[in-house]
Amino acid sequence: ELVEALAEQNQPQILAGKSILITAGPTQEAIDPVRYLSNHSSGKMGYALAIAAQKLGATVTLVSGPTRLNPPAGCEFIGVKSAQQMYDAVMQQVDKHNVFIGCAAVADYRVDEVMSQKIKKDNDKLSLTFVKNPDILASVAALPKPPFTVGFAAETHDLSHYAQDKLKRKKLNMIAANDVSDTSIGFNSDHNALSIFWPGGQQRLAKNNKDMLAYQLLTLMNQHYDNA
Amino acid sequence: ELVEALAEQNQPQILAGKSILITAGPTQEAIDPVRYLSNHSSGKMGYALAIAAQKLGATVTLVSGPTRLNPPAGCEFIGVKSAQQMYDAVMQQVDKHNVFIGCAAVADYRVDEVMSQKIKKDNDKLSLTFVKNPDILASVAALPKPPFTVGFAAETHDLSHYAQDKLKRKKLNMIAANDVSDTSIGFNSDHNALSIFWPGGQQRLAKNNKDMLAYQLLTLMNQHYDNA
Repeated sequence: ELVEALAEQNQPQILAGKSILITAGPTQEAIDPVRYLSNHSSGKMGYALAIAAQKLGATVTLVSGPTRLNPPAGCEFIGVKSAQQMYDAVMQQVDKHNVFIGCAAVADYRVDEVMSQKIKKDNDKLSLTFVKNPDILASVAALPKPPFTVGFAAETHDLSHYAQDKLKRKKLNMIAANDVSDTSIGFNSDHNALSIFWPGGQQRLAKNNKDMLAYQLLTLMNQHYDNA
Repeated sequence: ELVEALAEQNQPQILAGKSILITAGPTQEAIDPVRYLSNHSSGKMGYALAIAAQKLGATVTLVSGPTRLNPPAGCEFIGVKSAQQMYDAVMQQVDKHNVFIGCAAVADYRVDEVMSQKIKKDNDKLSLTFVKNPDILASVAALPKPPFTVGFAAETHDLSHYAQDKLKRKKLNMIAANDVSDTSIGFNSDHNALSIFWPGGQQRLAKNNKDMLAYQLLTLMNQHYDNA
């Protein structure tokens, strides 16, 4: 109810004049015309960020993999399936934006060669070789004039270690880490808890619904935006 | 509208006294806590069969992989994720049923060893070895006292050849083949067209919505039931 109350009030337009590019959801990597590789991202966190950013005054472009959610009203929406399609859409859009939030659970790998016909199950064993997908976050942060770049890390162990390593290695401005091994939060849940890291600092956002966490994360992002 | 009209009339109870076990949807094969392998089955055909079978007087048990659909009212519903879970549920239920309709798009393979932690993307390439899942249809048809067993075949090429081969090899009573390479029908579509094969005969059910096809397939199944 708090969220609805907030939404119905006039929000302080702290993001007025900012244009934010957000990715959300999983990607789907085809193996053949029937089979695919994906992950358990529901898209809820990214969609909550898109809705909250608009309410705080930002212009929003949402690039989303396949989810069960409806495109939020008011934002520019680009639906994609594969990591390569998401990379292409982001790279085409990024110049028009001040902030990039990579919230999608992008598949790290795709199959080496997509089969045009359904693979028959003639063999007792099947071996597939996967190659790396382009790294969207790192590519955005490595642009000559990068936007303020916020990443997400979904980890099942050593959360803080991997998140801080990812922040440095990919030269991000901020990273939000959540522990997907806790099934009461994270993937598919309406709730989450985030540890936010930036160069030289960190803050814990305690368990809350994803709508409230979106407001908190955007507020924190905005505080650090001017120092970047 | 025809379907709704049919549904609101009293249906001829041609399946009265029969107990039908139906599988539907895709299966989801975990790779690690985050990633999975699946396929594009929506579950619509299997759910349509469950609803139609009840309206025609049957008692229905529906074993379903993860779909976006609501469990049909009135049937016994068992939700599963993996092919192994679907196999276990079917084998536990099958003795209580006269008819088994395997409409699910069961993953033929699962990864050799599911990782308990998220696989890190340290390597440029990733190789995964898949092993065969149990064959639910063939296992049911090979039981000492098998139910009347109907399979489905989703093929992208040589439809009739593969379907008839599957009918014989797995000792099914009937098989329904649909061409998933035509995107106007099949996976995720509300429409389908089926070629039905049984030992010594075949019939084409022309493109129609899945609700009507369900009635037609069940009627055809019932005609052949007594000869089995």
